[in-house]
Amino acid sequence: MITITLNETVTASNDLDAEALRARMREAGTLLVNLMSSPGSGKTTLLSRIIRELPELRIGVMEADIESDVDARRIEALGAAAIQVHTSGMCHMDAGMTAAAWEAMEAKDRDLIFLENVGNLICPAEYDTGAAKNIMLLSVPEGDDKPLKYPLMFQKSDALVITKTDALPFFNFDLEACAERVHRLNPLIRIFPVSAKTGEGMEALEQWITGELQAFKHNDIQI
Amino acid sequence: MITITLNETVTASNDLDAEALRARMREAGTLLVNLMSSPGSGKTTLLSRIIRELPELRIGVMEADIESDVDARRIEALGAAAIQVHTSGMCHMDAGMTAAAWEAMEAKDRDLIFLENVGNLICPAEYDTGAAKNIMLLSVPEGDDKPLKYPLMFQKSDALVITKTDALPFFNFDLEACAERVHRLNPLIRIFPVSAKTGEGMEALEQWITGELQAFKHNDIQI
Repeated sequence: MITITLNETVTASNDLDAEALRARMREAGTLLVNLMSSPGSGKTTLLSRIIRELPELRIGVMEADIESDVDARRIEALGAAAIQVHTSGMCHMDAGMTAAAWEAMEAKDRDLIFLENVGNLICPAEYDTGAAKNIMLLSVPEGDDKPLKYPLMFQKSDALVITKTDALPFFNFDLEACAERVHRLNPLIRIFPVSAKTGEGMEALEQWITGELQAFKHNDIQI
Repeated sequence: MITITLNETVTASNDLDAEALRARMREAGTLLVNLMSSPGSGKTTLLSRIIRELPELRIGVMEADIESDVDARRIEALGAAAIQVHTSGMCHMDAGMTAAAWEAMEAKDRDLIFLENVGNLICPAEYDTGAAKNIMLLSVPEGDDKPLKYPLMFQKSDALVITKTDALPFFNFDLEACAERVHRLNPLIRIFPVSAKTGEGMEALEQWITGELQAFKHNDIQI
């Protein structure tokens, strides 16, 4: 497994870098999906389940963390291509860092690459990574008030995955109230309640992902 | 309840601002405690329980959020002095913002003020707020691997409160392994496993807080 340490990219415009990376990934035929969430909301567990349940897809994962490589090792143990990125203390990935991580990956022939962004509900929402799709996770134990406090990430995401739904009996989380708050911020966002532990709800999410991938391959995805 | 919107403080040095605020709070006889954690780890629930269980103390709370005032309303409903700070999108409080929030509070005669920092495991650890003590929260559902990924906050904190321990039967969280990882980063940190829902472990935490407050009042606290 490769581990690289990256610093913030110093260029005129992160937005231009992001557009350039999107064009390059479109040419390579690889759908880049940016996963954002709080620390501990279950990004790696969700990815592990998706990798196991979609064996027909060539999946790669970029793990972005301030330190450690525990997540990349978990992904690699499943047979998927993984790279560990250390962000030099930074609270988010930018487009230049994402491009550098993609270049450093060994397997280039991926259908789908997930960028597991740094665990943080604020900073990653402010930087376009060059991904074609943005997915955010919100776990049940975090609470249904998060759309009120961290609106930008809900606005920037194409899909919201509500994770750890198997914990719903133990936490005070109102799925309907949460969905209403989210749709007020972003009427077009797709919402998928799932438990990566029990598998509940995974099929709908995986169908959406494979549908987006097919649309991308047929060049008619909106990016 | 007062709500103020603050921007990042532009001065020569946040560290100097922090020292100045610490000196002013020492003079005022008010112990400022900075609470840091991921979103949804239970800071407001923990504070609510502390306020209810320590009625002999005059407690104030500064709630820092990007948006919303749900937390400050919860605190005010308990009869404690609260101020809601909006951080203009910023992922942390700095010392100048903390000083401005303190000035804007109506009740100045507090024994203890908790600053509930923005929910984020990264940025708040990088900015000295001027607090005399730093406490971080890690909730059981977030996982015991967090010290490996977000070491700085564990290093900067005087105490770690492991919250939502009532959820231990439902999550794969090894308290001992977590404590060992934390002590490797910070041998002096105090660790308090608590459930603010059931009350388990709250007494030890509250004794530590009142002990720190007494030491502060007798002017022999290390700040």
